[in-house]
Amino acid sequence: MSLAGLEAARTSDQVFAEFYTSKLSGTSIERLEARIGKAIHVLGREGVEEDPEPMLEAAAGGTAVLLVVGDPMAATTHIDLRLRAERIGIHTRVFHNASILTAALTELGLSVYKSGRVTTLQWPHGDYFPTSPYEHIMANVEAGLHSLVLLDIHSDEDRYMTANEGCRLLLRYEDMLGNGVTGPDSLACVVAGVGSPDCKRRAGRLGELAEEDFGPALHSIIVPGKLHFMEARALVVLAGADPHLVGEGV
Amino acid sequence: MSLAGLEAARTSDQVFAEFYTSKLSGTSIERLEARIGKAIHVLGREGVEEDPEPMLEAAAGGTAVLLVVGDPMAATTHIDLRLRAERIGIHTRVFHNASILTAALTELGLSVYKSGRVTTLQWPHGDYFPTSPYEHIMANVEAGLHSLVLLDIHSDEDRYMTANEGCRLLLRYEDMLGNGVTGPDSLACVVAGVGSPDCKRRAGRLGELAEEDFGPALHSIIVPGKLHFMEARALVVLAGADPHLVGEGV
Repeated sequence: MSLAGLEAARTSDQVFAEFYTSKLSGTSIERLEARIGKAIHVLGREGVEEDPEPMLEAAAGGTAVLLVVGDPMAATTHIDLRLRAERIGIHTRVFHNASILTAALTELGLSVYKSGRVTTLQWPHGDYFPTSPYEHIMANVEAGLHSLVLLDIHSDEDRYMTANEGCRLLLRYEDMLGNGVTGPDSLACVVAGVGSPDCKRRAGRLGELAEEDFGPALHSIIVPGKLHFMEARALVVLAGADPHLVGEGV
Repeated sequence: MSLAGLEAARTSDQVFAEFYTSKLSGTSIERLEARIGKAIHVLGREGVEEDPEPMLEAAAGGTAVLLVVGDPMAATTHIDLRLRAERIGIHTRVFHNASILTAALTELGLSVYKSGRVTTLQWPHGDYFPTSPYEHIMANVEAGLHSLVLLDIHSDEDRYMTANEGCRLLLRYEDMLGNGVTGPDSLACVVAGVGSPDCKRRAGRLGELAEEDFGPALHSIIVPGKLHFMEARALVVLAGADPHLVGEGV
């Protein structure tokens, strides 16, 4: 949380929070309440998307803060809520925060200026197994860009896709579509617990990463594009990459 | 600044800072020093890139913190410094922060998941006027993706490119290359002072934005890709777009 965000929460009349678009880690609601100095009303998906009236009423009659994990407004649900508020004359302000979209890459020393379109892997259900994640990664690889691959979250069931499951899905896509983008020998990276003191960073062959243990979620996968020599070096020094695999010092 | 970052600075033996990769705003070095409770050694580009020994020595003999504006590790100079430290056995940790790369888009209600490659406009000098920014925007537009256009910074001369100058450069590219991407009637957005209470957001025709006043730097330009109806609505509600221009409610 930023200092400006904390100050806003401290001085607001009511504080709400939702943790269904991401996962609270490294703190607890009780510790947040102690820090902010007031009770936090925790909302589920329904409380934000379908029945936000208590929040809007609090904001109409004073000030209200909604706490979220990560960069606010990255989820459509937050944009929708903001537009609802503005349309009925409630002035809104966003206190930006670190986002996995940049932090996952920068933790690895990969350039965010070479980040291509982000994609998300979802658990297949029934016949639903869209090829778009593979296509996004392929388009990025062709343009020399890095692909951040986010992993599915079912927070209501406390289920978070691990990097292992994600790597196996990517291998399955490669089997199906076969363009040499996410095969067992493809270079890939995993970051786990970004922002925590025990953040894990690994770079290696996708087939090997599928078997490694990265500790508790949240995890993210990155499929690097063309590497600048500084990026290759960073993957060796920061993420334990085999120098030969990243073309560094060979 | 994040609470975790503040705590790290408070408990570290020495605190350094650099403001040449971005611009400090909304606070001052004196206020930061009061908050952290110790003196801050402000470094220029040379002190980070060519002569970082004082920082590395402080870190080798205890703990040292380097404060930067925005998301750390987005600049190559920070990655290089981190690698130097790790290679001589100094353990490093990054306290991530809000980044213009996500905040500029989310302020406008544009989806960060549809963000294409970021590009930067530089002041032309002599014959140097690379076409790559226009090509990056064109590739993004073709893929339906949004283009964040960052603007040149010469912090040593206290010069920051305004959105007006940036829009005029984009118009000039369009004149030269003529692919209908950044013409005077193209939809574009400007954000100024992201993160400050008086953040400005505007969406309109590029030729018109080139003439508007956006207040003090830093500014950013966004050339939107294909708009989802929620994004179109957000540009109307949050950034004053003409509903007809964004295809909303027509």
